[in-house]
Amino acid sequence: MNKLQTKAEQRLIADYYDNLTNTFGQRISDDGRERIQKAFEFANSAHAGVKRKSGEPYIIHPLAVAQIVSSEMGLGATSIISAILHDVVEDTDYNLDDIQNLFGEKVSKVVDGLTKLSDEITAQHDSKQATNFRKMLMTLSDDVRVILIKLADRLHNMRTLDSMPLPKQLKIAAETLYIFAPLAHRLGLYSIKTELEDLSLKYKQPETYNQIVFRLHSQRERRESMIDVFVKPIQEQLEKEGIEFTVSGRLKSIYSIWNKMQTKGVSFDEVYDLMAIRIVFKPKPNVSEKRQCFDILSLITDIYKPKPDRIRDWITIPKANGYEALHVTVMSPQGKWVEVQIRTERMDEVAERGFAAHYNYKYKGVQSPESELDKWLEKIREMLQNPESDAMEFLDEFKMNLFSSEIVIFTPKGDMINLPKGATVIDFAYEIHTDLGNHCIGAKINHKLVPVSYVLQSGDQVELLTSKTQSPDLSWLQFMTTARAKSKVKQAFKMDKKMHLEKGREIIENKLKEHKIKPSSDTLKKLSSHYNLSNKDQLYAHVGMGFIQIDDLESILKTRRENKLAKYWKLSFGKNKDEESELELELPKTQINKKNTFLLKEDPDETNYTLAKCCQPIPGDNVLGYMTSNNHVIIHKRNCPEANKLMSQQGDRIITAEWTNFKKRSYLTRIKINGFDRVGIVSEVTNIISKQNNINMRTVLFDTHDGIFEGDLFIYIHNLDDLNKLISRLMKIKGIDTIERIEKIEN
Amino acid sequence: MNKLQTKAEQRLIADYYDNLTNTFGQRISDDGRERIQKAFEFANSAHAGVKRKSGEPYIIHPLAVAQIVSSEMGLGATSIISAILHDVVEDTDYNLDDIQNLFGEKVSKVVDGLTKLSDEITAQHDSKQATNFRKMLMTLSDDVRVILIKLADRLHNMRTLDSMPLPKQLKIAAETLYIFAPLAHRLGLYSIKTELEDLSLKYKQPETYNQIVFRLHSQRERRESMIDVFVKPIQEQLEKEGIEFTVSGRLKSIYSIWNKMQTKGVSFDEVYDLMAIRIVFKPKPNVSEKRQCFDILSLITDIYKPKPDRIRDWITIPKANGYEALHVTVMSPQGKWVEVQIRTERMDEVAERGFAAHYNYKYKGVQSPESELDKWLEKIREMLQNPESDAMEFLDEFKMNLFSSEIVIFTPKGDMINLPKGATVIDFAYEIHTDLGNHCIGAKINHKLVPVSYVLQSGDQVELLTSKTQSPDLSWLQFMTTARAKSKVKQAFKMDKKMHLEKGREIIENKLKEHKIKPSSDTLKKLSSHYNLSNKDQLYAHVGMGFIQIDDLESILKTRRENKLAKYWKLSFGKNKDEESELELELPKTQINKKNTFLLKEDPDETNYTLAKCCQPIPGDNVLGYMTSNNHVIIHKRNCPEANKLMSQQGDRIITAEWTNFKKRSYLTRIKINGFDRVGIVSEVTNIISKQNNINMRTVLFDTHDGIFEGDLFIYIHNLDDLNKLISRLMKIKGIDTIERIEKIEN
Repeated sequence: MNKLQTKAEQRLIADYYDNLTNTFGQRISDDGRERIQKAFEFANSAHAGVKRKSGEPYIIHPLAVAQIVSSEMGLGATSIISAILHDVVEDTDYNLDDIQNLFGEKVSKVVDGLTKLSDEITAQHDSKQATNFRKMLMTLSDDVRVILIKLADRLHNMRTLDSMPLPKQLKIAAETLYIFAPLAHRLGLYSIKTELEDLSLKYKQPETYNQIVFRLHSQRERRESMIDVFVKPIQEQLEKEGIEFTVSGRLKSIYSIWNKMQTKGVSFDEVYDLMAIRIVFKPKPNVSEKRQCFDILSLITDIYKPKPDRIRDWITIPKANGYEALHVTVMSPQGKWVEVQIRTERMDEVAERGFAAHYNYKYKGVQSPESELDKWLEKIREMLQNPESDAMEFLDEFKMNLFSSEIVIFTPKGDMINLPKGATVIDFAYEIHTDLGNHCIGAKINHKLVPVSYVLQSGDQVELLTSKTQSPDLSWLQFMTTARAKSKVKQAFKMDKKMHLEKGREIIENKLKEHKIKPSSDTLKKLSSHYNLSNKDQLYAHVGMGFIQIDDLESILKTRRENKLAKYWKLSFGKNKDEESELELELPKTQINKKNTFLLKEDPDETNYTLAKCCQPIPGDNVLGYMTSNNHVIIHKRNCPEANKLMSQQGDRIITAEWTNFKKRSYLTRIKINGFDRVGIVSEVTNIISKQNNINMRTVLFDTHDGIFEGDLFIYIHNLDDLNKLISRLMKIKGIDTIERIEKIEN
Repeated sequence: MNKLQTKAEQRLIADYYDNLTNTFGQRISDDGRERIQKAFEFANSAHAGVKRKSGEPYIIHPLAVAQIVSSEMGLGATSIISAILHDVVEDTDYNLDDIQNLFGEKVSKVVDGLTKLSDEITAQHDSKQATNFRKMLMTLSDDVRVILIKLADRLHNMRTLDSMPLPKQLKIAAETLYIFAPLAHRLGLYSIKTELEDLSLKYKQPETYNQIVFRLHSQRERRESMIDVFVKPIQEQLEKEGIEFTVSGRLKSIYSIWNKMQTKGVSFDEVYDLMAIRIVFKPKPNVSEKRQCFDILSLITDIYKPKPDRIRDWITIPKANGYEALHVTVMSPQGKWVEVQIRTERMDEVAERGFAAHYNYKYKGVQSPESELDKWLEKIREMLQNPESDAMEFLDEFKMNLFSSEIVIFTPKGDMINLPKGATVIDFAYEIHTDLGNHCIGAKINHKLVPVSYVLQSGDQVELLTSKTQSPDLSWLQFMTTARAKSKVKQAFKMDKKMHLEKGREIIENKLKEHKIKPSSDTLKKLSSHYNLSNKDQLYAHVGMGFIQIDDLESILKTRRENKLAKYWKLSFGKNKDEESELELELPKTQINKKNTFLLKEDPDETNYTLAKCCQPIPGDNVLGYMTSNNHVIIHKRNCPEANKLMSQQGDRIITAEWTNFKKRSYLTRIKINGFDRVGIVSEVTNIISKQNNINMRTVLFDTHDGIFEGDLFIYIHNLDDLNKLISRLMKIKGIDTIERIEKIEN
C-alpha cells in the first residue's frame, strides 16, 4: 500500500481499520462506507512515514479517534470521516481546499474547526490554552460534532499518555481534569467523562490510583455477592411482571471514590460502602416511559424501605445535560443505603452518551428533550460574542458553571429556570433579563424579603424587586455564580472604565495634596504595591470604583514593602504576565532548568522557592513546582486544586520538584482532632505533642459540646514523617476518634 | 311515652332518634337495632325530666353523641349503645350492674370507662384535669372505643357551647385545643380534629374567627374557579384512563389559617393562596393501590411541573396515625404551588376517620397498617405504669409528643424507628432500649461523630456509641423530646432521690459551717426563696443533684427578697399548690370575685395583677387573667400558648379581664421592621417615633445586609391604640416592607 510503511505497520493499520469498520453495523450506508474508505486511504498516504511518540505510524491515532467517534459516541459517516482527517490539514501538505474538493463542504467545515483547535498543548504564552478553549467553544456553537470529535481525540491522547515525558503527562492530565472531563459531563457523555477522570488520576497520582484499583479488585467478590442478594427479589418481581430488563451494580469510578475520600475526608471503605444499582428496561409500547419507571419504583419500595424524600424524578424535569432517570434510595437487608436508578433503554443511552445520543435520536426523528442543551449553547454563543471578555476570566467562569449541580427556580408566573447550585437572587435576575439584573434591589421568596445576595434553593419561587435608581454594583461579583451575570456586571463597568480612572486619579491627588505629598511615580508605585496592584492605572481604577479607601496614607508611604516572597506568592496568582513584569524586584537570577527535577533544599541561602499557602505543603508531601516569570518557583501539593488550575492554564510553567532531606526548618501545619471528651484528654494530647522531638505547638484550641470534643491544633513540624508519627501516637489516646490534617491554615 | 316530657319534647327526641337510625344502613344488624332501641328507651326514661343548660331534654345529648359515633366515626352497635348510655350511671339512679344486666358485659365495660372520665370539667383541684386525662389514657389502652366515644362527647359539647357562661366557654375551648384536638389528630380523626379546632377558635377569639369566615366566604367564588381551571386537564386525563374518581379543592380549616397567620406572621391572603386538591379514586382490582397512585402522580406531573424533592410517599411508610396518601406539589398555570393529594377510597376513609376506620376494617378482615398505632398504645401503657410519674408532668410531655410531626430513623441493621420531629440521639437511644439510653455517649451518623444532643434528621442512619461508665444525666432533659426518654431519666433520678437529699443537706450544712451560720429554718427559707424553691427539701435535692452551686452564701443571706411581683410571676408557673402555700408573702388580701370581669386599673395602689412576661400584653390587647392561690392575677394575652396551657390544666382559675383607660403608665414592647436600606432611613424611623407623643425608645438596633435592613426596636408605649398609630405611620416610610410586633422581649 505505502512505500514508507513496513509490512508489520501495514498489518497493524489494516487491523485498526477493520476494527473501525466492524463498529458500523446498520448505521452506516454503503455510500458512507465508500467515503470512509476513501478518507482512510487519503489520510494514510498523507501521514505516511510520520510516527507518534510511541513509535507507531501516525495514522493509528486518527483511526483510533474515529473508532471512539463511531463505537463510543455512535456518530455517523461525516463525523467518522472528519475524525480520520482531523490532523491532515495541520500536519501534512494538504489544505482545506483539498478536503473540500475530495469530501465535500460538511466534512471540510468540521475539519476546519478541528484544525483551528490546535492539538499542540505546549502553549507559548500563559493564556494560549485559555484562548484555545475559547476557540473550541466558538466551534461548539457552530457544529457540535467538532467538540465531540475533539473529546474523542483527547480521550485517545489520554489512553496513550504513557509515551509522554512526566511534566507533559502532568500537564495534559491536569488540563483534562480541569476542562475536558467537565465538558464531557456537561454534554452528558458519562462514560467518556469517567474514563477521562480515571486516566487523569492515574497520571497525576499513580500511587493513589493503584491503591484504589487494588482495593477495588480485592473486595470485588464480596461486593458482587452483596449486590446479588439485594437484587434477587427485585429481579424475581420484574420477571413476574414480564418486564425485559438488565440489572447491574453500578461501580463507582476510581476518580469519584478518590474525590469523595478527599472532599468528605472519609476512608475508602466508607465511600465504597455506598452501593448503587441500575435497572435498564425495555418499555412496553403505548404506556408512557415515565409511568413504567414509577411502576418499577413502586415495586421496589414494596420490597425495601425507601429513604424519606429521596425520590428524584429526572424524567419530568431532566438534568440540564439531558440526563433522564428515576432514582430512589432504599435500605438493604444488610442495613446499607442503596441508590436504585431506573431507566428505559433510551434513557440509558442518553445517560451514557449524552449529546451524541440526542444528536442521533434527533436524526432518527425521535423526540428527545435537548432543549436545555440548546439553550445552553445559545448562552455560550452570547457570552462569546462579548468582545470585552478576557479569555482567562471567561475560562474560569465557564468552568465554574460546568461543574456545579443544578437547581430549578420558578418565576411568579410559574416558568421554570435552570440555574447552577449556589446561584443568588442577582444571578436569577440577570438570567431573566439584563435590565432586571441592573435594577434589582432584592426579592420576595415565600413572602419574605431577601437581599440580592440570597442563595436560592431548588424549588424557590422568586418575585424580583427593582428600583429605577439601582445600578449594577461591583460588590455583587462576590456572590454571583453564573458567568452570564458576572459578564453583564463587568461589561457595565468596563464601559465606565475611563470615568473610574479619572475619578480615582482625582481622589488620590486630592488626598496627596491634603498631606502635602507630591504625586510622584515613586509615591504611586508605593501605594500600588501596598494594595498589591501592578500599576497606577489599576490603583486609580480601584479607588475610582470604591474598592479601596485610602485612609492611612502617611503610614503606607512610610512602611517598607512587605516580605518579598510573600508578595511573590500573591503575584503568582495575578492574571496578567504584562502586569507582573512591570514590577522590578531584585531576585536571584540563576536560571532554573525546566527539564530537570527541581530540588527543594533546606539551606536558606538557596531558597529560590516558596511554599504555596493554599495547600501548605510540608517536606515529604508529593509536590510540584510552578515557575513564575521571575525565575522563582512556587511549590504546591500535587492534589492542590489551585495547582491543577495552573497546570491547565499555564502548563508550560509546571516543573517536577522533589524534597531533599529536611531536618532543621519547621513548617506550620494544622490538624483537627475529634473524639469523646473526658477529664484530662487535653493534657494527654498536648503532652504527647510536647514530648515528641522536633515539634512545637503554636496554638491549640479545644472545644467541647455535649461530650464530644474538637481540637484544632497549629504545630510547627519538620516533615511528613514526623507528622505521621505524631498522628499515630495521638490516635492511641483513649477517646480519640479521628485526626485530620487541614490544609488551610488561615481561615 | 314519658310523663315528664311535653309533646313537643317527645317529637324532638323522636326526630333525633330517627336521624340516628337513618345512619345505620347495612352496618347494623337487626339484632343490633333492637338492642339500640332498648338502650334508647332505657336512657330516655332514666334522664326524663332533666334538662340541659340550653333547655333541651337531657337525652338529646347522648343521642347526638351516638349520632357522631355512628355517622362520623362509623362505629358499630356496641359503641352506639355505650354512647346512648354514657351518662346514665353518673347522672341517674341506675348503676353499672343494671347496665350489665340489661346490655351485657361489653357495653357495661365501655360505659364504666366513660363514667370514670367524669364529664364535669370544672375541677376542684388544680391537677384534677390532668388526673382525669391520665385516667382517659388508661382506658385508651384497655378499649379504644372509650376514647372514641369521649371524643364524640366532647365534639357535641363544643357544638353546643353557646349556652355556657363565658369563662366556662373559654376553659372548655382551651382544654379542647390543648388535649382533645391533638388526641383526635393522633388517632387520625382528621375531620373531628378540624371541627374541634375551629370551634375552639370560635369561642376563644370570636372576632378573629368571624373575620376569617367572612373573608373565606367573600373569596370563595374566585377560588373555586381557580381550582376548576387547575383541575380540568387532570380530570380529562383521568377520565380518558377510565378511572372512577372525585376531585375536590381541599379547603384549609379556619383554625389552620389562623394558626399559620400567627406562627409564620403572614397575612390571610398569603395563607389562603396556598391551594391543595385531593383526588380520591376507586382502585382497579389486581393492581397494587400504591402503583395506581403513582400512575396518577405520573399523569399529573406530565401536565404540571412538580416542585423538586416534593414527592411524599405516605403509602410505603404511612404516618404514625395511619395516614396513607401520595402527595406531590406542582406549579399551577397561575404560578401558584398546588399540593395534590392522591388517595384510594380506602385511604381516604382512613385519613378522615383514622383509628375508627382501622377499627372497622379490622373487623371486616381488611389488612390495614395499624401496627404503628398499636405500638403507640403499647408505649402509653408502659408510661402509665410508671407509678412515679406526676400527672401534670405526664400531661405536658404526652401532649408534646401528640403534636409533633414525625421523622423516620434507621438503625445500623436497617430497622426503621418513628420519632417525633426534633428528637435527639439520646431520645433514639432510649427508644431502642433503656440500657442503651443510660449508657449513651454519642453516635455516628454518616461516619461523623455527633453528641447525644444532636437533633436527628429524617432518614438518618444512627450507630449508637455507649460506655459502661456513662450514666443518665439530668442535663439531657433539656434536649430530650420523647416522653419515654424523659420519664426514663427522671425515673433513674427519682430512685436516687433520698441519696440526693442527703448529699445536698450535707453540702449545705458544711457550707454554712464554713461561714459560721446556723442552719436555722429561717436561713434555709431564705436560701430556698433565693433560688425560687419552695422548701428545704427541694433545696437539698437541687443542690444534691448539682443543679445549684451555692457560691455567694453571705450575700444571699444578706439581701432582702427580690421584687415580690416578679417572684409571684415566676411562682405562678410552679407546679404544685402545696408548695406555693408554704411561702408567707404579705399581699393585699381583698378577695377577687371570680364571677365578675376583672378590671385592670392604672392606679398603682390597686395593682393586684401582673402582666405575664411570656406574651407581654399592653393595654388594649385581648386578655384574660389567671388567679394565683394568693389572690393575685397574672394577665395573659388570649392567644398566648402559656395561657392556653393554664386554661386546660387549671381552668377554674381563669377569669375574664378588661382594661380600663390607660394613659399614664408606659409598657415596654418590641417591634421588628423590615425593608430596603437607603441613606437616612434610620433617622426617619427614629424621628417618627420620637415625634409621636407618649412613646419613648429604649433600644434601637439596625442591621443592614446587602441592601435589606432589619430594625429591632424596644419602645415604651401606653396602649395598643398608640402602638397601632405608630405602626401605620412607620409603614408610610419609603422602603419599609413589614412591621411586626414581637411578643418576646427577652431573648
